[in-house]
Amino acid sequence: MSLEDKRIIVMATDGFEDSEFNEPFQRLQTEQASVTIVSTNESVITGKDGTTYDVDIHVSEVDAEDYDALVLPGGVANPDKLRTDEDAVRIVREFFEQHKPVSAICHAPWMLIEADVLDGRTITSWPSLRTDVENAGAIWVDKEVVVDEGLTTSRNPDDLPAFCDKMVEEILEGKHAEQTA
Amino acid sequence: MSLEDKRIIVMATDGFEDSEFNEPFQRLQTEQASVTIVSTNESVITGKDGTTYDVDIHVSEVDAEDYDALVLPGGVANPDKLRTDEDAVRIVREFFEQHKPVSAICHAPWMLIEADVLDGRTITSWPSLRTDVENAGAIWVDKEVVVDEGLTTSRNPDDLPAFCDKMVEEILEGKHAEQTA
Repeated sequence: MSLEDKRIIVMATDGFEDSEFNEPFQRLQTEQASVTIVSTNESVITGKDGTTYDVDIHVSEVDAEDYDALVLPGGVANPDKLRTDEDAVRIVREFFEQHKPVSAICHAPWMLIEADVLDGRTITSWPSLRTDVENAGAIWVDKEVVVDEGLTTSRNPDDLPAFCDKMVEEILEGKHAEQTA
Repeated sequence: MSLEDKRIIVMATDGFEDSEFNEPFQRLQTEQASVTIVSTNESVITGKDGTTYDVDIHVSEVDAEDYDALVLPGGVANPDKLRTDEDAVRIVREFFEQHKPVSAICHAPWMLIEADVLDGRTITSWPSLRTDVENAGAIWVDKEVVVDEGLTTSRNPDDLPAFCDKMVEEILEGKHAEQTA
């Protein structure tokens, strides 16, 4: 079991929570997936604690049809910026429309609110988002990882081992009919 | 016209947008108001760009009955932390229940969402909050300052002159029956 035929996007911008980018990214590479870093920045993104990554593709050039799954790291500033970009939000929505696995941790579920894909879904997040998540129509639970038909969510960096395991499991399973916009 | 008989709370925690604390705070002092700095921190708060203020009273010890108005500076990390504190949220709600003026700028309207006081109100905010604000039942508009029956809101530091003027005007007017929880 590996992800060697899978093409995965990790989408973030400046201010991401370093471990929440690094650990899923490394795990996807260990599993032999093809990983593409997508951002609203043109060339480089820098984490809250200084980690940098080169951007592979700008959000304006991404067609979700070319990929199998989406991973969204947290960090408060990162999704707060990303959610104001129309293309970043469109990309999230396309993955849901195409029933493809999406994994979001910490503050990243703000992107799910912005893409208007949470009605009736069950998720977790950083606790500050709870009211926003519930107002968007979702059921919010306090667990290290929640899997709801291809949608994997976790609360914080301590949850990363469980988050990465479920992220890989859902990507291996492929499309989920109930994962929809 | 001055605010010399008015007792005002400015509530924030670490990560506040420095100018959004400094300018309203100085304006209130110029107008001779009695200003109390309230926080979830016990002793000192530090802005995003390094400004520090001594905390006068911890959130757990505040009774809104003792004050005439509330001012909430922005900065993404500040309200993201404050909204997870039960006392900070209770204080916001008490000001609305008591029909007292509340002024919130930038990311601070997350506190209004958390206090569940936005249904049917018209406000502005930093643009990333628009969807959260609308999901909380408010009408969101893109203006430098919006005044709705004692509730004054603005988008960002460029709006501070207009924000501070309306903040003072609403505090002078006193209680507004339509400002409610």
